[in-house]
Order: sequence, then structure tokens, then C-alpha cells
Amino acid sequence: MTRGPRYTPLAESLPATVPFVGPEAMERAGGRPFRARLGANESVFGPSPRAIAAMAEAARDSWKYADPESHDLRAALSAHLGVSPAHIAVGGGIDGLLGELVRLTVAPGDVVVTSAGAYPTFNYHVAGFGGALLTVPYAGDHEDPEALIARATETGAKLVYIANPDNPMGTWHSADRIRAMIEAVPEGTLMVLDEAYIEFAPAGTAPQIDADDPRVIRMRTFSKAHGMAGARVGYAIAAPELVRAFDKVRNHFGMSRISQIGAEAALADGDHLTEVQAAVSVARGRITEIAAANGLAALPSAANFVAVDCGADGAFARAVLEELLARDVFVRMPFVAPQDRCIRISAGTPQMLDLLERALPEALAAARAR
Amino acid sequence: MTRGPRYTPLAESLPATVPFVGPEAMERAGGRPFRARLGANESVFGPSPRAIAAMAEAARDSWKYADPESHDLRAALSAHLGVSPAHIAVGGGIDGLLGELVRLTVAPGDVVVTSAGAYPTFNYHVAGFGGALLTVPYAGDHEDPEALIARATETGAKLVYIANPDNPMGTWHSADRIRAMIEAVPEGTLMVLDEAYIEFAPAGTAPQIDADDPRVIRMRTFSKAHGMAGARVGYAIAAPELVRAFDKVRNHFGMSRISQIGAEAALADGDHLTEVQAAVSVARGRITEIAAANGLAALPSAANFVAVDCGADGAFARAVLEELLARDVFVRMPFVAPQDRCIRISAGTPQMLDLLERALPEALAAARAR
Repeated sequence: MTRGPRYTPLAESLPATVPFVGPEAMERAGGRPFRARLGANESVFGPSPRAIAAMAEAARDSWKYADPESHDLRAALSAHLGVSPAHIAVGGGIDGLLGELVRLTVAPGDVVVTSAGAYPTFNYHVAGFGGALLTVPYAGDHEDPEALIARATETGAKLVYIANPDNPMGTWHSADRIRAMIEAVPEGTLMVLDEAYIEFAPAGTAPQIDADDPRVIRMRTFSKAHGMAGARVGYAIAAPELVRAFDKVRNHFGMSRISQIGAEAALADGDHLTEVQAAVSVARGRITEIAAANGLAALPSAANFVAVDCGADGAFARAVLEELLARDVFVRMPFVAPQDRCIRISAGTPQMLDLLERALPEALAAARAR
Repeated sequence: MTRGPRYTPLAESLPATVPFVGPEAMERAGGRPFRARLGANESVFGPSPRAIAAMAEAARDSWKYADPESHDLRAALSAHLGVSPAHIAVGGGIDGLLGELVRLTVAPGDVVVTSAGAYPTFNYHVAGFGGALLTVPYAGDHEDPEALIARATETGAKLVYIANPDNPMGTWHSADRIRAMIEAVPEGTLMVLDEAYIEFAPAGTAPQIDADDPRVIRMRTFSKAHGMAGARVGYAIAAPELVRAFDKVRNHFGMSRISQIGAEAALADGDHLTEVQAAVSVARGRITEIAAANGLAALPSAANFVAVDCGADGAFARAVLEELLARDVFVRMPFVAPQDRCIRISAGTPQMLDLLERALPEALAAARAR
């Protein structure tokens, strides 16, 4: 026995890797800031002015712990969503809620099913609790509901994860297809429906779900359409029994007071949301045009980003990405083939997309010249 | 097998209880707000004006995720503390850091040692990861370092917890006594030194600790002296190997951007800290006087609260507390005998303490008349 901490066998087994390197770390390594921050699917259009004002006003009261029951925010969400507060869990972004959900359901060796190349932070949580992560491939750049369900059924998975719209490809399924997936969830499996980008999808993409349905938990966030990624507010909609289970493990006083007040104000500002949705739609069109002008195909997207097919393999897309980074344009890319033939470009302001327009031809030429 | 989630056996075994009921829930139950918020050891004197301004300014940029490495805050803490950034882990308050530490070190059945009646949220985390919590009694209203070490040694504890100054009693040990405790930490045990209230203690209470010492992790917070409880920023100082281990389990993008910027500004405002320390000292004196005027003894305190001995048993102290709550004065009390003969009153503004002064004789009379 040595001096100092003895970690659990599980903790000993975990790698020290992280799901994502942040853009600030890249900026520090590069010695200068990015000029176009288009890699993290943040909303460059910012939070609602009403949310900004509410957060600024709330700063002086941040000597108070936030209400651990998030009563006011849950009441506002309840009215907005047409479900009771007992159906709503609030957490530190979808990331935080996913971690708590995995902790509640996944013991070492338990099986979890997702798509190869889907959200890495979910995979990080599964690994962090010792789960056995099984994947199915994307089908035509879409997550494959039937394959996910089949794999979950044959393996007795505790959780099956799908994002609709998908990240990193931006593709989506109809409400009917998602509803059919829920109907096919096997006994003993919980479907995790990540709707982080749902506000950018065509009307009708979000299925009607009975909030008491024990087969599915849907997760949403203020990080994307509401432009509050740095505030860390997400929520889950699920049967009350599952919502109550979060109380067993969550950090009850863990939510920022300012953030919750900001989220309430953001929720009340439907006009800002509409403006952001319109700006994102314009930006997606512009990214698609910029890609086409360079001979590249952009995938149709229902999210606040566009996957642009660089037309070759992952190594080439990686080279394009690196050349964009070298030109102070921050983008990311999928982790897994064949999706990794693409780079993923978040919706930007016109100024940021001007920079992209100038940098992309240079980056492509430089990547081809490597 | 039934429809819906299957929880882990550990999750199934956990109670749905919470460490603390928030004052907002009490206010909702009571139908009106408290007039003196003196129960949660918050800093009624508020954050630094510079922190308030920095947070208000940062609100508009909260569309950006925070730097997951907390580089700037860790650099500022590094300069402030005279240790390297590699010795500093930042997290969502001490609560968040304690949860991560327990997750890293405590597997089901592993032994953890603390004092009977010490910080309940630490106990909540230990239970949440299946740890076996063993306690030793307070000695004369102080945590008992020698008894804690003896119990950790005989049981092979993974963690041994002590707060200095202590919560809920406000008592403290000298730096020499804490240093001696560290020297006695058995092999394979990590000592958790919770210094949430250290800024309120007499100069010299915080021991010099070699930041590379693998036997101890010390935790501090912006929630108390810096008046930012609702912002959720804490930090741990430990050997770099232990700091790196947090990267295996923490929610990398989990910190609020506004909060981190506010914490940096708060750290830079030494004048505000000095003012708060002075105001807390005045408030402790006033609480002691109010207690004495009612024939009660206040314990000496090195924290931003005072434990007031109600002179009888826990049931009587509970009655006094309830009568104070009924008079819109929010206070809390220790959970365990014999400390539960006391009520715990946080340092308040003069106006809040005027309310306490009026309410306490009535509350005592009403409690005695029950």
C-alpha cells in the first residue's frame, strides 16, 4: 500500500482522455484567438436580450444558493410543454443529465446501445460507470432506429440512445419514425431521445409522447437555440418515477442561480427564438452555398450546423479541418468512418461565414497539396 | 421484467431523501418569504461589486461554453495560492468536487470516516456510491482529529473527512493540530480537508501543506466569503496525480462561464473580502450578544455563522427553530446529539439581526410554552 488515494478499480481503469478539447485550449496552443468560432454548435446569435438582462440583474443575488427544486424554472417549462412539473428534471445541461441517468441505470458490464459516431459525451459517461457500449452503424448518414432497437433487443440493453436531429450529421427522422421506435423499445430498456437541436428541425419533427410513458426520456437544452451553452441548463421530460430517481444522485444545490433565472427569461422570449431559427436557416443555406462553390456537397441539416462532405476519406477531411484551424476558423468533424469524410460547421454570423468563404478554398488547396 | 428503466442495485437501494430542504421550498410551504435568510451560511453581504459587474458583463457571452480546462481561473488561483495550476481542480462548488472525489475512490462497501453530525452532503455522496460511512463523535463540540485518524486506521478507510473550521458548530483547530493529523494519516487513506469557511478563521488557522503531499486534498469555495453560493464554484488543492484523476469523471463542460469569470473577479478583490470578514466578525458578536440577552450561550465561531446553545435537548432546539421559522427567520440546526441542542445562525445584515433580536425571545417563550 502506498501513501495517498486508492482509486476504485473502475476509476483506475478509466483513461484520462476527455470527450472534446475546448477551443480555448486550441487558441492557447495556437497563440491567437479564432476569428470564426464555428466548431462547438454554440449559438453565435447569442441569448435573448431578456435573458441577458435577467442574468445581469441576477448577478448581485448570486450570494444565495439556487432553489434546489428548480421550482420556478420547472413551472415555466411545465406551462410551456404542457406536462406537469413532476415530469421535468432540470440539470447541468444534457451532459449533466446524461451522466446522472447513466449512473442510475448502468452498473459495470451493463449494455448500452448507440450509433457508431454519435455523441461522445454520452459514451464518456457510459465508460465512466463501466458500461459496455455497443454500436450500430449509421445508415446513409442517419442514425438507424430499427438497427438500434434490434441491437438493444438482442443484447438486453439498459439504455438505447438516439439524437433527433442527429449530431454530428444534422440529419433527422420524422416524428412518426421516432414514435415507431418508441413502440419497439424492448422491455427493460430505456430509450434516451436527445433533442438538443429540436428547435431547428422542421415543424412536426418532435413526436407527441405521453409524458408518463416509462419507455423513453427526452432531453432538451438551453445551450443551442436559446444561446446559453455557457450557462449549463438542460432538462429531461420523463415519467415522474424516473424524474424522482434523479433526486437520489444529483447534486441538489448544483445549479447556478443566474443560469436558471436566465433560462426562465429565455423561455419567455419566443420572438428571439424565432429570430435565431431564421438566422440559423439563413446560415445553413450560406454554408451550403460556400460548400457548393468549392465543389463540395453539404448534407441537409435540421440542426444549427451543417456537415460538409469533403469528398474523400477521414484523413483528407482532417487535413481540411486543420487548414481551417490554421486560418483561425474553428470547426470540428465526426469521429467515425464513413461520417468522418465530413467537417461539421456551426451556423455563424454573416461575418464569420465571410471568413469561412475566404478560408475554405485555401484550406482545400492546402489539404490537397499535402 | 417491466417496461421502463431498470436501475442499478445501488440506485434501487438509495433513499429519495435529500441532504437539505431549500429555503425556497419552506417559503412556498409557508406561503410567504423569509425576512431574515440566516440558515444556509450564505454571505448576505453579497459578492464583490467587481464580481457582480464581471458576471453582468459576461451574461451576453454565455452563448459560449466555458473553457473546460478552467485555465484562466486556475491560473488566477495558482498565483493567489502559490501552487501550480496542476495542483488545482475546479468544480461545481465543494459539493460537486466531493461527489467526484467519492466516485473516484469509493466502491460499494469501502469505508469512509467522518464525524457524527458533520457535513451531510459528503455523507450523501458516500451513500450514493455505496460506501460504508463510519463516524466518531465530536469532542467538546469540536471534530476530533485523533479519533478520526484512529478510526480510519483501524478500518482501512479510503477517505477521512474533516472540516476546519467545522460546520455546523463553527469550532476550529489550530494549523498545528491539522498538520499533525495529516502526519498521522494512515497509508491508503486520503484526508479530505474542507476549508469552506477558512477565510473567516483567525490568521494562521490554515496550515502550510506541501501541495504535492498525496495524503490530503483541501477544498475551498467561492460560496462563502466570496458571496457566490449561487454561482457554484469550488476548487481543490491536491497532488497533480489526484487533480488529473478528476478529469476521468468530471463533466468537462459543466462549469458556468459567467460563474468562472465572476470567481476570477472576486479573487482579485481583496478589499471586498476584508470588508466581508469584518462584517461577519461584527455579526458574530451581535448574535452572541442577542443570545446572551436571552440567557443562551453562543459557541465561539471561526465561520460565518454561530451555533447558539438553546440550553436543553434537541427537541427543544427544534422547537425554537420552528418558532423562528414561523416568525420568518430562517435558521438551521445540527442533526446529531449532543450538537443538536444548538441552532445555527448565519451572519446577517444589521437589519436581519434586528429581526432575530425581536423574534428570538418570542420563539423561546413559545417553545417553552409548548
